[in-house]
Amino acid sequence: MKTLIFLSFTILSAALTACQKTKVDPVAEGEKLMQVSREWSQTVPTKDYEKMLSYWRDDAVIIMPNQAPIKGKEAIRAMVESTSKNPAFNISWEPIEAHISDDASMGYLIERNKVTLNDSLTAYHNVITVWRKTEDGTWKNVADVSTPDTSRN
Amino acid sequence: MKTLIFLSFTILSAALTACQKTKVDPVAEGEKLMQVSREWSQTVPTKDYEKMLSYWRDDAVIIMPNQAPIKGKEAIRAMVESTSKNPAFNISWEPIEAHISDDASMGYLIERNKVTLNDSLTAYHNVITVWRKTEDGTWKNVADVSTPDTSRN
Repeated sequence: MKTLIFLSFTILSAALTACQKTKVDPVAEGEKLMQVSREWSQTVPTKDYEKMLSYWRDDAVIIMPNQAPIKGKEAIRAMVESTSKNPAFNISWEPIEAHISDDASMGYLIERNKVTLNDSLTAYHNVITVWRKTEDGTWKNVADVSTPDTSRN
Repeated sequence: MKTLIFLSFTILSAALTACQKTKVDPVAEGEKLMQVSREWSQTVPTKDYEKMLSYWRDDAVIIMPNQAPIKGKEAIRAMVESTSKNPAFNISWEPIEAHISDDASMGYLIERNKVTLNDSLTAYHNVITVWRKTEDGTWKNVADVSTPDTSRN
């Protein structure tokens, strides 16, 4: 009988521990996610395509001004390789704010980017990026929408 | 002793039920969220400001092309009232895809909108809207980014 009681409390304890996995610290998680975005931006000058591409989930979508949405890793790979081959092209970004779902399975960042095509052509954008956490605990980008920000021109 | 065993299983059962609240049907939740967005679009012609404004959370942000982000309910209210007073202005939108966090506390929609200022000026945008579920189970919009889509012009 004692064994049974012990067993039931062990199961209860395990169940409650499993529940607690859904409790997250949104500030700490948000800071982690912003750090992922900063590290991602730093991969651009390296021209390491595989590293750059590793931040997107396979089904990610990029929505840019006046262009058809770029859907999926292969289309994104073609875009990254094409732009990276252009020595005049550069992009950098920085996260401003992070927001995380209650279970930290999804989050979004408000960001700003700067795109240059050469010394005379610079475009700034306001951006929202959406992220999902994978089973191994890393954040992957699933959506990216940028819109022109002429206030910084 | 039987009472103790019964009690511990009752607690275990309650704990597991609480856990199961985090399990959601992403397709059904996504369809619900898209329906909220469709209903929201239908409030625009009614000019019912309070109804329109009820879809935003107090800390929502709207990021439009070439404009400073509009942050918070009071700034959004001023924008809604200003645009609604212009008889030439109209906006409508439709959701295309929904994506929901594992616990359905956050979700985002890929949407398209159409803005008209008069019969001769029409602008299309690709949009991502981000939503959070409130304690009473309703979805509220927290972020909206729109970028020009010239493919439909």
